[in-house]
Amino acid sequence: MMCREKVIEEMKQRVYRANIRLVDEGLIKLTWGNVSEINRELGIIVIKPSGVSYSTMNVEDMVVTDLSGNPIEAGLKPSSDMATHAYLYEQFKTIGAVVHTHSENAVMWAQTGRDVPAYGTTHADHFYGNVPCTRELTVDEIQLDYELNTGKVIVEKFKTEELDPEAVPGVLVKSHGPFCWGETSTKAVDNAIVLEVISKMAKETEILKSLEKIQEIPNYLLDKHYFRKHGKEAYYGQ
Amino acid sequence: MMCREKVIEEMKQRVYRANIRLVDEGLIKLTWGNVSEINRELGIIVIKPSGVSYSTMNVEDMVVTDLSGNPIEAGLKPSSDMATHAYLYEQFKTIGAVVHTHSENAVMWAQTGRDVPAYGTTHADHFYGNVPCTRELTVDEIQLDYELNTGKVIVEKFKTEELDPEAVPGVLVKSHGPFCWGETSTKAVDNAIVLEVISKMAKETEILKSLEKIQEIPNYLLDKHYFRKHGKEAYYGQ
Amino acid sequence: MMCREKVIEEMKQRVYRANIRLVDEGLIKLTWGNVSEINRELGIIVIKPSGVSYSTMNVEDMVVTDLSGNPIEAGLKPSSDMATHAYLYEQFKTIGAVVHTHSENAVMWAQTGRDVPAYGTTHADHFYGNVPCTRELTVDEIQLDYELNTGKVIVEKFKTEELDPEAVPGVLVKSHGPFCWGETSTKAVDNAIVLEVISKMAKETEILKSLEKIQEIPNYLLDKHYFRKHGKEAYYGQ
Amino acid sequence: MMCREKVIEEMKQRVYRANIRLVDEGLIKLTWGNVSEINRELGIIVIKPSGVSYSTMNVEDMVVTDLSGNPIEAGLKPSSDMATHAYLYEQFKTIGAVVHTHSENAVMWAQTGRDVPAYGTTHADHFYGNVPCTRELTVDEIQLDYELNTGKVIVEKFKTEELDPEAVPGVLVKSHGPFCWGETSTKAVDNAIVLEVISKMAKETEILKSLEKIQEIPNYLLDKHYFRKHGKEAYYGQ
Repeated sequence: MMCREKVIEEMKQRVYRANIRLVDEGLIKLTWGNVSEINRELGIIVIKPSGVSYSTMNVEDMVVTDLSGNPIEAGLKPSSDMATHAYLYEQFKTIGAVVHTHSENAVMWAQTGRDVPAYGTTHADHFYGNVPCTRELTVDEIQLDYELNTGKVIVEKFKTEELDPEAVPGVLVKSHGPFCWGETSTKAVDNAIVLEVISKMAKETEILKSLEKIQEIPNYLLDKHYFRKHGKEAYYGQ
Repeated sequence: MMCREKVIEEMKQRVYRANIRLVDEGLIKLTWGNVSEINRELGIIVIKPSGVSYSTMNVEDMVVTDLSGNPIEAGLKPSSDMATHAYLYEQFKTIGAVVHTHSENAVMWAQTGRDVPAYGTTHADHFYGNVPCTRELTVDEIQLDYELNTGKVIVEKFKTEELDPEAVPGVLVKSHGPFCWGETSTKAVDNAIVLEVISKMAKETEILKSLEKIQEIPNYLLDKHYFRKHGKEAYYGQ
Repeated sequence: MMCREKVIEEMKQRVYRANIRLVDEGLIKLTWGNVSEINRELGIIVIKPSGVSYSTMNVEDMVVTDLSGNPIEAGLKPSSDMATHAYLYEQFKTIGAVVHTHSENAVMWAQTGRDVPAYGTTHADHFYGNVPCTRELTVDEIQLDYELNTGKVIVEKFKTEELDPEAVPGVLVKSHGPFCWGETSTKAVDNAIVLEVISKMAKETEILKSLEKIQEIPNYLLDKHYFRKHGKEAYYGQ
Repeated sequence: MMCREKVIEEMKQRVYRANIRLVDEGLIKLTWGNVSEINRELGIIVIKPSGVSYSTMNVEDMVVTDLSGNPIEAGLKPSSDMATHAYLYEQFKTIGAVVHTHSENAVMWAQTGRDVPAYGTTHADHFYGNVPCTRELTVDEIQLDYELNTGKVIVEKFKTEELDPEAVPGVLVKSHGPFCWGETSTKAVDNAIVLEVISKMAKETEILKSLEKIQEIPNYLLDKHYFRKHGKEAYYGQ
């Protein structure tokens, strides 16, 4: 077994890189997101610190907590979404990392309160069925222990619909945005990227389905443009 | 107290960087935007110069004016939107910086004359309620003192609807585009970024709400794609 | 007066840079575009060569022609759109440069055959009224002298509607795409950028106008998110 | 004739670069795509390896197979889409390279099961008529030899509609996504880029056609903005 310090250091590096990758992929603006990783043997979680700017954040800023989300080192505070992450780790025993973003296409499904339907194989390659959207939290759930209750409505949704968090590695929280997960922080970020893409594809598919074919260009224009660039009579270069 | 020259120099640097950040974030094309900062103790405003290209602009080009917007140094002219900025500083006593852009999603709400509704928590994290849109200016308001009157319709909107400019740090001017503000130029630019994102999310949420779920892919296709990549029988890699 | 060689060399450099800028701004994919400049005193036009890739093109590849578009140096052939450019220079006496792209938002208006309406001040800052769209070319106009006739339907549109090419520095050719112009190649490219942006804004404005406001988030969710980040009780950082 | 080893090495380099270009052009996220090239004289195909990340992939990872898709060197496995590529090479005798992506605009037409109509000259410059979409595969076709049957429904579509794969260098597989081809891997990637652009343009053209012109800005606002920036009375710079 590797020494505890080395494991924690590597977790910090992976969590840091996963956070930065979300920015590079365009899934995070300003400070709108966070990644964590769990090590169940050591009983620790490593998570992005609270309210730190991505441009100045570094590896050592990552926060180490126990499984309840309490910091076990002096330093920065964990992300305010800590309680959501901790509850997901407690309930979904096989996941190793959690990612939260406000990526715009996933958010727009969350804001309408709709599941993202499986409209194609890009979706099916990664999510086994619809990406579910939770119910709205109640007034009481919002006013007391909001972040913990955010975790609870996610788990409630998976239990009620008998979903497997391994086969459906992400969810939309109504009016809020996506949480994704995976065995590793790399896989969890991959799933956040996938969810953003399939959310966009699904919306655009519904738009396209609602439209009607209109008049195409006339054949003589098609002929002119195609044959000035292709075949024996071609003469065109922009 | 810091010496006046040093304070002004630092204001110029911050205002310069804030302008450049708007370009980097994609909120400004060509010369379509400007940032200013106020120092109420010194009675000065620093603002982007008029009609200077972002690619050749430098820190020393920033223009220093009094609280009425009159330059107090020889050199370039202040942005033509100076009068709008100065009026906002006069009326909104707690703000320290103003940002104007033509960012496309905020503009499209301004062009329809609609407030941006609070459809999710990304919005609620930064704007306490709808982002208001002013009324159209009258012929007279446009023909005489147009830029000053642009400030006046903004303030009129906030007074009429009893909005707090600290809790609602931005506005849409009808048919024109957004003005945002904040304690500092960094915060004001943050708010301009937020307004652009939530403007897009709100539009897309309304689009998605207007659509209907269509037929999902058949289960055997879902099964094939999911299980050729996951589980014991997986064989797929692109 | 500068020597002829020096003037030509500088025209080539400007035309080259203008072409590259269109790629950098995302207005051109593959080889879909071209820029030219005219010097009326010298009686020459400099234009992008035909069918040369942007990644390998260099300044010396720019082609010098007379005012009818005939090359006056040995070397590459001028862009196949030469005849359109030459006719625009002949008819619009005050323009100094022409830009053609297939930028996607301008194309989509061309493909629907609609003028781009002036829905806001971003438009009004650069185009004095709608950006016109030509009629479709006839079979005969397409089959014989297609590129010249493309110039002719543009000029016909401006004459019929009594438009001033200085005040309206661009046009959409039906089913095809935009041509823009200006005093200099920099201004012509600026106008191509503007046309792309206002084409997008106009489409999105019509979309937004067709939608209806839906239910906003409940006040207790707005309160929770706003006040966990702002004011005395704030505790939130992602 | 060049020596076999040199030919293969150059094929590997071209196939590698073509894959990377798809990532750079934004057509591929994660590992969602692959390119192959055939050399009919040597009886070999070179294709992207299965499931290798684009960030760590290098030239030597490209896989060499016979015309049935069986690897003829030790090393990585070919892309799981190998059977589709091999079948297309067998049936379309003149093509030299095949590209598969999940580029989002092409996917959305595939997900609706619609051909992409030829709405403009950007389309006509590269595809001689609609880009066809195949029928859905049957349960049996999906469960047994799925990748081969994907090739078969493509060819079936071209035979049924008497399409020429040289004039129509791409197709949409229903619920899945695009396959494109060309004489060379560069041309095949060009066609994949074109298909993505014209898929977007076609969708947006139908959207725009479904909308109605709304109220433009009043003339006095148009006058104010245009003339504060142009002509004798101009005073404006942002």
